[in-house]
Amino acid sequence: MHYGYFNGTIAPTDQLAVGVTDLGLLRGYGLFDYFLTYNGRPFQWDWYWERFQNSATRMHLPLLIGKEETYAVLMDLIERSGSVDVAFRFVMTGGYSADSISIERPNLLILTEDIHPVPSIQYEQGIKVILDDYVREMAEVKSTDYKRVILMAEAIRAARASDLLYQKGGEISELSRSNFFIVKGERLITPDRHVLRGITRRTVIQLAQTDFKVEERPVLLSELYDADEAFTTSSTKKVLPITQIGELTIGDGHVGPKATFLLERFNDFIKNW
Amino acid sequence: MHYGYFNGTIAPTDQLAVGVTDLGLLRGYGLFDYFLTYNGRPFQWDWYWERFQNSATRMHLPLLIGKEETYAVLMDLIERSGSVDVAFRFVMTGGYSADSISIERPNLLILTEDIHPVPSIQYEQGIKVILDDYVREMAEVKSTDYKRVILMAEAIRAARASDLLYQKGGEISELSRSNFFIVKGERLITPDRHVLRGITRRTVIQLAQTDFKVEERPVLLSELYDADEAFTTSSTKKVLPITQIGELTIGDGHVGPKATFLLERFNDFIKNW
Repeated sequence: MHYGYFNGTIAPTDQLAVGVTDLGLLRGYGLFDYFLTYNGRPFQWDWYWERFQNSATRMHLPLLIGKEETYAVLMDLIERSGSVDVAFRFVMTGGYSADSISIERPNLLILTEDIHPVPSIQYEQGIKVILDDYVREMAEVKSTDYKRVILMAEAIRAARASDLLYQKGGEISELSRSNFFIVKGERLITPDRHVLRGITRRTVIQLAQTDFKVEERPVLLSELYDADEAFTTSSTKKVLPITQIGELTIGDGHVGPKATFLLERFNDFIKNW
Repeated sequence: MHYGYFNGTIAPTDQLAVGVTDLGLLRGYGLFDYFLTYNGRPFQWDWYWERFQNSATRMHLPLLIGKEETYAVLMDLIERSGSVDVAFRFVMTGGYSADSISIERPNLLILTEDIHPVPSIQYEQGIKVILDDYVREMAEVKSTDYKRVILMAEAIRAARASDLLYQKGGEISELSRSNFFIVKGERLITPDRHVLRGITRRTVIQLAQTDFKVEERPVLLSELYDADEAFTTSSTKKVLPITQIGELTIGDGHVGPKATFLLERFNDFIKNW
């Protein structure tokens, strides 16, 4: 059973509710974050907290709780969950608003959830994604704006794909909820603009430093044609190979050695977290 | 005191709450509508219902309640409010989601609210707006995505302005929550793309037919320089003159006769609604 924290109170998640004048609900004004624990400890907590703080600042939302106090809440919620490891979801909205538009005091919600690992067949075979002519507004901020992928759910299913790969004007940014990398020889290339700078992305870049030349820069659609491999990174996906993008097969269509190597490095890293 | 309807139940608004797995809250997946009553009757109800239905279809959300049943809810809520006239807010989200991304069953919320009329000094002097380099995603759908104007609240205040006028690449679309018109001689000109087709806009166009040549077409920033008048339309604002756009004074900087004429026509129309 999961519990959640809402503005200072902890209760079972199914008893938590947000009043109907909340600006997240009425105006889409909210930000979130999501991360896992490994061995009962929040993964890359310092980095997540820093990002959450930055997102809050960019959305002009004051953080009414400090880092240490929040960490104590996380520990409390893990213990109540009865699991060793959980996923955490933070949601902070513009709060209740008398005139449906002015921010008064943010609402902060912290939930534990079950971890839903990616099926192992996806790591063995790689996934298919489809291109979508789209770029996220304020991609650097982890806002709650994920309308696009929900709207495109039918198109994804119809293409027997797993996700969207956003591109605009021939420039690739990211998947709907994860970052994008290509491998060319010893080069590891990932977009550096119109993307959320994922914590798993950052971890993978760090783990890759000794074996790859890492390039963070704009990536064009045309570069997919001679890529050896492609993969996506996120908390849940870790390092997940992409073997098909729309009609295009990446490399030889099989999971490549570099993605496998980085996934192993990542799994070693979290084992000792 | 206001009451609200939530998925079949009616309760005082301050007792209504939405569970924390709602896709409107978690993912910004929601749409809304807003309209007033005049003489106790929902203004342009047929048009609002049609638009709400269209928005729902475009967001792949099934409407689980019909028009007649909804109308009965509106009448019930008006009566409970104790007021002759109220504002109605509809919010429909993707509903509760087990995996935080898949739509199962939408949540529908219908609230009454107090009407907050525009201060009469704004009708007498006109308002100032500032230009914002922005265009709404899916502007035709009245989604809950109003992040931009909340984010820009400080900039609006700092400029002593009332609102934003969105433009992208030199093409004007709309204000943050209302439509935009300019007057040149006997011509009434209003953008026809990247805009929400407002019901007040539609009403004003209808009321203007006999006295104006109405042009619904793309409108360029450059056309502001020789506009005689400008105004904005919405449920709350009716026909509200705009006398300044950023550093540019419109016409002679005073409220013009055409906006005044259309406001009078609109006020006559609602008097007899």
